[in-house]
Amino acid sequence: MKLNFSHSKVSEDTFIQTGESLHPYIDILQQVVDGHEYEVYESSILMPGDNDLYEKSRSLANNFDLSKIKYIIDIGIGGSNLGTKAIYDAFYGFFDMIEPHRYPKMLFLDTVNNEQMKRTCSSLQSQGITPEEVLIVLISKSGGTTETVANFELLHTYASQIFAQELRNVIAITDEDSHLWNKAHEMGIACLPIPKPVGGRFSVFSPVGIFPLEAAGINTKEILQGALDMRNTCLSHNILQNPAAISAIAQFNQLKQGKTIHDTFIFQSNFESIGKWYRQLMGESIGKEQDLDGNIVNTGITPNLSIGSTDLHSVGQLYLGGPKDKMTEFVFAFNSDESLSLPQEITMEGLVDNIASKSTSDILHAILEGVMVTYEHKNLPFISVDLESLSLFSIGQFMQFKMIEMMYLGKLLHVNTFDQPNVESYKVETKRILSSNS
Amino acid sequence: MKLNFSHSKVSEDTFIQTGESLHPYIDILQQVVDGHEYEVYESSILMPGDNDLYEKSRSLANNFDLSKIKYIIDIGIGGSNLGTKAIYDAFYGFFDMIEPHRYPKMLFLDTVNNEQMKRTCSSLQSQGITPEEVLIVLISKSGGTTETVANFELLHTYASQIFAQELRNVIAITDEDSHLWNKAHEMGIACLPIPKPVGGRFSVFSPVGIFPLEAAGINTKEILQGALDMRNTCLSHNILQNPAAISAIAQFNQLKQGKTIHDTFIFQSNFESIGKWYRQLMGESIGKEQDLDGNIVNTGITPNLSIGSTDLHSVGQLYLGGPKDKMTEFVFAFNSDESLSLPQEITMEGLVDNIASKSTSDILHAILEGVMVTYEHKNLPFISVDLESLSLFSIGQFMQFKMIEMMYLGKLLHVNTFDQPNVESYKVETKRILSSNS
Repeated sequence: MKLNFSHSKVSEDTFIQTGESLHPYIDILQQVVDGHEYEVYESSILMPGDNDLYEKSRSLANNFDLSKIKYIIDIGIGGSNLGTKAIYDAFYGFFDMIEPHRYPKMLFLDTVNNEQMKRTCSSLQSQGITPEEVLIVLISKSGGTTETVANFELLHTYASQIFAQELRNVIAITDEDSHLWNKAHEMGIACLPIPKPVGGRFSVFSPVGIFPLEAAGINTKEILQGALDMRNTCLSHNILQNPAAISAIAQFNQLKQGKTIHDTFIFQSNFESIGKWYRQLMGESIGKEQDLDGNIVNTGITPNLSIGSTDLHSVGQLYLGGPKDKMTEFVFAFNSDESLSLPQEITMEGLVDNIASKSTSDILHAILEGVMVTYEHKNLPFISVDLESLSLFSIGQFMQFKMIEMMYLGKLLHVNTFDQPNVESYKVETKRILSSNS
Repeated sequence: MKLNFSHSKVSEDTFIQTGESLHPYIDILQQVVDGHEYEVYESSILMPGDNDLYEKSRSLANNFDLSKIKYIIDIGIGGSNLGTKAIYDAFYGFFDMIEPHRYPKMLFLDTVNNEQMKRTCSSLQSQGITPEEVLIVLISKSGGTTETVANFELLHTYASQIFAQELRNVIAITDEDSHLWNKAHEMGIACLPIPKPVGGRFSVFSPVGIFPLEAAGINTKEILQGALDMRNTCLSHNILQNPAAISAIAQFNQLKQGKTIHDTFIFQSNFESIGKWYRQLMGESIGKEQDLDGNIVNTGITPNLSIGSTDLHSVGQLYLGGPKDKMTEFVFAFNSDESLSLPQEITMEGLVDNIASKSTSDILHAILEGVMVTYEHKNLPFISVDLESLSLFSIGQFMQFKMIEMMYLGKLLHVNTFDQPNVESYKVETKRILSSNS
């Protein structure tokens, strides 16, 4: 992974000076790693190297007869499924519709959707799926997420009716000693723990992500190797070589200059869900009413997600002509060796010049370059991240980079990166409404 | 469809006064309708009632042996596919992965994606699909969109190799007399016209949307009936009864008060692509460098898309605690009659209170109500749109409402709602790069 910040509109001096203020925090993160400390919220960075926990997930996954599994139903919402979906979609999910015969497929049930539940159950029935072919993964950190429990109950009720027997392969992933943990044990359902201080949005390398991805046949070791590699890079005191620090400092400085929106502009359409995972990471981590001293600050950056080249034909006009309130991060990878090429003789000759014999990479690359040059001309700040390859290793690198970046950005903004106090307010109202309708 | 603006933080007086300034423009739109005027950009509002054009699309669709078609491959980008995808995804696409045996399926090729092209072709092969079972719809208003032409050439080359014969069912939808129009005629490919003044983002009710949706077996008449119904409502001088005017005025006033982001918060996860369609509509229509007098204004509102309840667990914290820079529009529909219900006896009893016997609608509704009450408490401005039913008619209403809303908003902001001059700049650079690599 290579980060280029030459168009960030932040000077090298600023990077170095602001970076110095991060040194004590970098030391704390290094201590967490060295001491294998599980008492602080930052301990999510231990996940890629925690072999015990990793082996627990892997061996439990392999306890099931995975060769029989056709559908893995991942029931969870927010931090419980966004990381898994990011990785699954990048390599399989985006293509699932065009590959109807590839199995296992992962289905994600997050919010309650009546039509989705009905059609899922009736499709399982019409396909003649048996309980042995379905693996249910129930994920809730707190163990009491309304949508997750509701989806499990609905699936349990309706799928059991269809199969005329109970669901067989069920596993729960939750905090040790949550109500769900205890209930699952009572019911004889296998459980995997999420280490207490590891919050949902930082949990992709914990059992939350590893178990379902491993069950889906994805080489999770490669993901973690990428993450470990990047963790070391992102704990460097040499700020100009530390992508997490650079990216955080760029965003911090651009926010001070009125760039209230961060646009992750990904030139790889199957990586859309990775952008959605980052949306939560940024939105929840630094979108805060109060700072660490209790002052009302209403701070935060609104994460925006764009897909190249698709969104150039959608919101490109706004980005180039509209308000200058965005900082952009272009993310891309070009595996040019494996690219398909257009024929030498174009059938529809004369419509677009200079595309004969060009590969898909050539074309996408020319569009991206054209856009970056235009951003430069228009004085729009951006950084770019070259993933270098479309691999699990790169994705592991990118996600670890982003999680550490967010810790640095929270530190610079002087907010609690790890809590989400304001979402409680609507949950209280929802509970009141549900109880008054009983 | 019902719009509620009681929490828009805009006074009834302001709605009425600002609304009066729209009256002359409303009269112009009415003239377009009455005179069946095809000379102005606003003439997209003629689409739902243009029976000749509608019948052309329908009869051409029915010229193909649709009962044999398994895959409709819709090749287009931006305004050429977002409307079609919005409607298709809402009713089928969102569920396609869980319904592998439902046909025809629509595949969308927008940007170039090497992996997607490869896997599409190899899947067509492994499924034993024949040319008779594939319908290619090639859509480009200008006739010279790089990605669209590249995708067609790639598919033509590689699918023809797989089938060992040429693609059979191909149709082009483009401006009359574009290069594509002429080339297609030369090659004996059937063509449907897009009326000249109807821009991509306003073209969903033209052949651009009608042909592929009709070919997919969707009752397009019902969509257009909804649109026609809404067109009348949105041309009313009675501003308080005119949802397009109300919504535009609310956004205009909130922008003046620093709400630079518009969040469409849809509580129906299968409607995500409708939100993406609106993203283009808003982004391109009012994201402008210059106003109508040529002043540099860099105006616009950044469209943001959220899915309820999913995104409450992702960016809800930011919305409730972060910067107060958003105006929100909640969109929902609850078909409570058809809702599944949770059992009376919850299996995982004790995890979430008061959900036994509740329907999916009850739960989602309680969450939405909880959120709206919290927005009210936090003084966050919002309007809400109740679609009343999850039907093609409602979607037709909603999309027509939004297109007229955007015409009003462009008028209030004194910009050209219908052009997108700034996207030319990156295209010039891209062409330069492509030609220098030849």
